[in-house]
Amino acid sequence: MKYRMYDLIEKKKHGGELTEDEIRSMITDYTAGQLPDYQMAALLMAIWFKGMTDRETTWLTLAMAQSGEQLNLKMVKGIKLDKHSTGGVGDKTSMILGPVLAALKVPTAKMSGRGLGFTGGTVDKLESIPGFRSDLTQDQFLQVLEDVGFVDVAQTAELAPADKLLYSLRDVTATVDCIPLIASSIMSKKLAAGADRIVLDVKCGSGAFMQDPEKARALAAQMIRIGRLAGRETVAVISDMNQPLGTAVGNIIEVEEALEVLSGGGEERLHRLIIDLAVEMLQLSDQARATREEAAAAVEQVLTDGSAKDRFYRFVEACGGDTRFLDHPVRTCAYEQPVYPEQEGYLYSCNTAEVGLTSVMLGAGRNKKGDPIDYSAGIRILAGLGERVSPEKPIAVLYSNHWEVMPAARERLLNAYTISEEKPEVPPVIHEILRH
Amino acid sequence: MKYRMYDLIEKKKHGGELTEDEIRSMITDYTAGQLPDYQMAALLMAIWFKGMTDRETTWLTLAMAQSGEQLNLKMVKGIKLDKHSTGGVGDKTSMILGPVLAALKVPTAKMSGRGLGFTGGTVDKLESIPGFRSDLTQDQFLQVLEDVGFVDVAQTAELAPADKLLYSLRDVTATVDCIPLIASSIMSKKLAAGADRIVLDVKCGSGAFMQDPEKARALAAQMIRIGRLAGRETVAVISDMNQPLGTAVGNIIEVEEALEVLSGGGEERLHRLIIDLAVEMLQLSDQARATREEAAAAVEQVLTDGSAKDRFYRFVEACGGDTRFLDHPVRTCAYEQPVYPEQEGYLYSCNTAEVGLTSVMLGAGRNKKGDPIDYSAGIRILAGLGERVSPEKPIAVLYSNHWEVMPAARERLLNAYTISEEKPEVPPVIHEILRH
Repeated sequence: MKYRMYDLIEKKKHGGELTEDEIRSMITDYTAGQLPDYQMAALLMAIWFKGMTDRETTWLTLAMAQSGEQLNLKMVKGIKLDKHSTGGVGDKTSMILGPVLAALKVPTAKMSGRGLGFTGGTVDKLESIPGFRSDLTQDQFLQVLEDVGFVDVAQTAELAPADKLLYSLRDVTATVDCIPLIASSIMSKKLAAGADRIVLDVKCGSGAFMQDPEKARALAAQMIRIGRLAGRETVAVISDMNQPLGTAVGNIIEVEEALEVLSGGGEERLHRLIIDLAVEMLQLSDQARATREEAAAAVEQVLTDGSAKDRFYRFVEACGGDTRFLDHPVRTCAYEQPVYPEQEGYLYSCNTAEVGLTSVMLGAGRNKKGDPIDYSAGIRILAGLGERVSPEKPIAVLYSNHWEVMPAARERLLNAYTISEEKPEVPPVIHEILRH
Repeated sequence: MKYRMYDLIEKKKHGGELTEDEIRSMITDYTAGQLPDYQMAALLMAIWFKGMTDRETTWLTLAMAQSGEQLNLKMVKGIKLDKHSTGGVGDKTSMILGPVLAALKVPTAKMSGRGLGFTGGTVDKLESIPGFRSDLTQDQFLQVLEDVGFVDVAQTAELAPADKLLYSLRDVTATVDCIPLIASSIMSKKLAAGADRIVLDVKCGSGAFMQDPEKARALAAQMIRIGRLAGRETVAVISDMNQPLGTAVGNIIEVEEALEVLSGGGEERLHRLIIDLAVEMLQLSDQARATREEAAAAVEQVLTDGSAKDRFYRFVEACGGDTRFLDHPVRTCAYEQPVYPEQEGYLYSCNTAEVGLTSVMLGAGRNKKGDPIDYSAGIRILAGLGERVSPEKPIAVLYSNHWEVMPAARERLLNAYTISEEKPEVPPVIHEILRH
């Protein structure tokens, strides 16, 4: 390496700013396996304590984005958008926003992940549609984007390999929970994936990595600053994850719920979030309307007139999926278990991560990479926070093909909620929108 | 490992205290090569930021002390002492204190190191005596201790291997400068070497690792607390290293100066330090005198009556050294170069590490482990801080067998000193003595 890694660690330890050239040289060498993990681990811990300036964070992001292949979307006309969610429980927004924006002539190109731990993943949800293939080649990816107007599949190219290496090291050295490192990890993949502008859905609450609104806002602000410094305009919506989003947690039941919204219906909070995210995306694109009200009306229009739903059908077809299945998107599970609360009162709070982990127990998610998924398993949520509940009426229904997991899953779900005689303050689905 | 290293890092990162069992298990596994360096590096950096409690530091010290062989000195009667210096320039105290204490019937058992960088090492100095062997077996070590009353040679056993591994990792991850880690590193070797009580000479100033008196005192206090918690009474003398100690910097010329002191003479500051360190050692032993004044008189007595010098001769003989050489300890160097100051005034300050590095240039020390040493090379210091100097009188004489290094060495030595019309405040040779 051009620099002594020792000197970089020493500088950061005392709160100094690394230069662009130091960061680039370090990331290049680390990706090439020429820098020992123990020195990188010491630096990461020093960063955990001392942070990074906006410039440092952006240089790190760019160095990681440029550490492998980078997608070129220039052959597709117009300003391309990417929407990214930091991950939650019952988050099916990606499946809805792509078709909506495509119907509004705004191309969105997105690479999604698979579910892990308490969070689900869009790729798994789409693959619950019979025949659907997420593993497109780079050429197919661009072709679908051009033909359908949006694309959302599994990562095709070796994007940001440096981020993958650094993330693995952070994972075993207790340096994951560090805002500049989280922000640069997310943004490096966004920059490598080639979109011109980015809308971030930063989840906040008991079912998100950021539980504290202050930290969610700090992360959002950090990513917006990186986007600006990297020349990619970025907007962040901080949305609520103190209860599952919508009424379905699983895979095929989330596709079913997405189709409800694409048909002009859907649960109120989910519908609200879709409208607000879609408006942010539309106004960031080259199809922006004169006012936000007009933009919202345009979004409502494509949801009710069937044109967004039509795009979704075309997308599923382009990826080999069976569109007839979409007309009746049901895969029956062997067992259904209604969950009755043990007392009467207001649904006061929800440990949303626990709801996500309950769905993993039922078979809908993964404890570790590579675990198989049961697409039909999941949870139907029947009551939201602030609702009056009683032992006579179930608050949820569990679906699984394994009867033996039901008692523990029921217990876990009940324990995830508290019920109180006091009526809770329920946070709105959108906490805040940060535009610069 | 019994614990997840991840959890230990996470705990320390947030300022928590590791348990004795966690530390022991971690050190055992790390010594066995079963813990990856990158996790240890992350923990070390977290310790750099968050420190360790006295209990943690002691547990770490004990775990490292017990990670390899430990010397058993029980077969030698009486309370055994060990004296340790944190390293300086011109520090020949070890060669004098062993014989002095032996003459006072206080056994001292010490393992010394070799010189590296700006500091010299007692082993190198002793090996400059023709025939002297520092590489005793463990049995020989104990035999010399019993026969002569003291021993001071190179490390025999595999003492504290965990410390060696940890130190190497700290060296490349910028985590050396951390008081609990420095203290546990030094004390782990002292505990493994088996002495009952320990006197520490913590050097402080421009020729010491601790330049700042506050840090030297913190390190001293930390080591005393470890000693107490580990059941080994420990006293620390903080001594001045803002100029070389005595008049000789090198190897054979330091033996010559040690013999001067052992013959009742020697430069004033060196003599003062010897008396004070010897008094601390005597009063810590089972031969303690009723008062410090009586102890000082007893020390002066063995220096003037030849009994301390006699012990040194017996020690050199026991280690195969030529005692006739000690009567005229001179090895002529091919070249001598007096160094004249370029202006008149008071010798105002000294960058003592630079004086040490000048002696390395002349051949008397090592830049890296394994470099050969020229025992006859070195520096004779002719003026101390606060003395009036002028271009007519040399302030030092350089000795080397390589004429070509002389101009740069002369330049370096001159640059190490400042001369001023203002008379400096010269710190006393003893800054402070910490007894608990």
